[in-house]
Amino acid sequence: MAVVATLSDNPSPSPSIQPLVDIVSGGMAEVNELILSKAGSNVELIPEIAKHLISSGGKRLRPMLTLACADMFGYRGNGHVTLAASVEFMHTATLLHDDVVDESDMRRGKLAARKLWGNQASVLVGDYLLGQAFKMMVDVGSLEALRILSEASAIIAEGEVLQLGAAKNINTSEADYLRVIEAKTAALFAAAAEVGPVIAGQDAPMKKAARTYGMELGYAFQLVDDALDYGGSASDLGKDIGDDFREGKITLPVVLAIQRGSDADTAFWKRCLEGEGVSDADLEEAISLLKKYDALSDTIERARTYGQNALDALDALPSGPHKDALADAVAFCISRVS
Amino acid sequence: MAVVATLSDNPSPSPSIQPLVDIVSGGMAEVNELILSKAGSNVELIPEIAKHLISSGGKRLRPMLTLACADMFGYRGNGHVTLAASVEFMHTATLLHDDVVDESDMRRGKLAARKLWGNQASVLVGDYLLGQAFKMMVDVGSLEALRILSEASAIIAEGEVLQLGAAKNINTSEADYLRVIEAKTAALFAAAAEVGPVIAGQDAPMKKAARTYGMELGYAFQLVDDALDYGGSASDLGKDIGDDFREGKITLPVVLAIQRGSDADTAFWKRCLEGEGVSDADLEEAISLLKKYDALSDTIERARTYGQNALDALDALPSGPHKDALADAVAFCISRVS
Repeated sequence: MAVVATLSDNPSPSPSIQPLVDIVSGGMAEVNELILSKAGSNVELIPEIAKHLISSGGKRLRPMLTLACADMFGYRGNGHVTLAASVEFMHTATLLHDDVVDESDMRRGKLAARKLWGNQASVLVGDYLLGQAFKMMVDVGSLEALRILSEASAIIAEGEVLQLGAAKNINTSEADYLRVIEAKTAALFAAAAEVGPVIAGQDAPMKKAARTYGMELGYAFQLVDDALDYGGSASDLGKDIGDDFREGKITLPVVLAIQRGSDADTAFWKRCLEGEGVSDADLEEAISLLKKYDALSDTIERARTYGQNALDALDALPSGPHKDALADAVAFCISRVS
Repeated sequence: MAVVATLSDNPSPSPSIQPLVDIVSGGMAEVNELILSKAGSNVELIPEIAKHLISSGGKRLRPMLTLACADMFGYRGNGHVTLAASVEFMHTATLLHDDVVDESDMRRGKLAARKLWGNQASVLVGDYLLGQAFKMMVDVGSLEALRILSEASAIIAEGEVLQLGAAKNINTSEADYLRVIEAKTAALFAAAAEVGPVIAGQDAPMKKAARTYGMELGYAFQLVDDALDYGGSASDLGKDIGDDFREGKITLPVVLAIQRGSDADTAFWKRCLEGEGVSDADLEEAISLLKKYDALSDTIERARTYGQNALDALDALPSGPHKDALADAVAFCISRVS
């Protein structure tokens, strides 16, 4: 199998998500319209919260994957738009519940919904969006797509419960943490990509290739996010640096630093992550430890490996502008942190 | 159309749920087994919480409706068992999220899951059970049952958001409140009953009759619950009297008492329900106002009307022991409070 591209000799000097955005722009306009209409309700609070979240500028990477992975097979129909909107609703519901669980104050640089409307409304509007997501999937009528997405839904929740256990536990291993991000991020990326060839009536190898692409991209995406939280600029992430640290979240950079650090370092991480609050000086100390033990650069290196796996998976898929755009998306994802 | 039975001249001296329990006992054994196996997870907290909730002695009325409404058509297969387990998971997920939203301390006479494991775990395990519910429905493979249950899921969440607005608002009208209970209780009863004839391959009139039976029974059930919260014995409900009152919940008895009361009464309800805590003396005063304005007896009267509507809906369904057991269930429901 010829390798589509490698991340180290990517031809584009500054990799961009733009080719993907451009190639699915027609479908995304329909997705956005559907999202706004399905977030409607006579119960005023629902569209209010949904619109706040939906208009707050996420990249909508997941629904773009669904569209591109159907369009690349010349799919003619509307099912991919509806599935893409379902995927975004599932993601949005997860964000609403996550913020409640993590007690987050900010989401994408804006006040989190739970700070504006309360935890109660965030829980219930998340439930509503999930219900709407399933209704939309049923409208499409593909039991296979329903199976893939409902499976993802259960896995995401399972991963969140798992993370709850790991959240403040400095004994979390790299393997534990990878299980968490497979469930909380990679599973939905994988499902979003897989339902593309499913709705386009493709056979098992195509479905598997799209699923693998999504899964590996999801891992890469999450690890980049983890590294950015300690090193990117605030504007990149739409949130302040150190959010994970302040919330006591164990992410891969921290797992690596703890593994490699001294007993004194472990005591520091324990106090910061299992304790009741940290200072700005603690955050500075944390970043300096992450650098000392190459924890950030090794996290990025692992992200790069997953990114390469995603590119390899593209091999099996049909050549053309959609495949190229999906390859660019991988490079873009990694470039955010390089 | 001949009326099956009326509530006022019910032949049974003490109406019982037992005929329904007995007639679906084989199926319910399979439902319970399926529930326990599907509540399993490698993430320990999930089976722990799920088993706590599932073993805490709910009547499982909803899955029994699904089984009886399929069995009455001589359905041979296993789909009704899986759908019944899905319905119970949807209900259990709702209870977990409800307790978080209502800040409840008790559920069916036991500490609420959120008091034992925290709000975070309750939110996430609810999400997990909902994901499992959808996976099970997909296993059954009936898009029509999926449509009915996913619709119910969105409606339940919408109703909970609606109730959030009404919860501490003494201007809630009877019509507002009936919308809330249609969504939060009656919709799932209706869906649970309707999927019976759906899986049994019945035509529209049978599906409609089962749906109407479930819907009307759901209304009756909720209004009886509302009345019991101010008048039943604690052991009946598995929770203390006055829980709704202490949580500032507006229910039909309160709506009626406010409508009929003086300005001084309104000030009392406003202080108690919109304020920050009530005393035992407040609860006594509330019960005495409810009695003064016939608010409890009129709530029960309305429940009786819905119960009669449920019996009328049974007319269209095939005669036999299942229909008789479903009629007894209505009478039992009303008798809890008469």
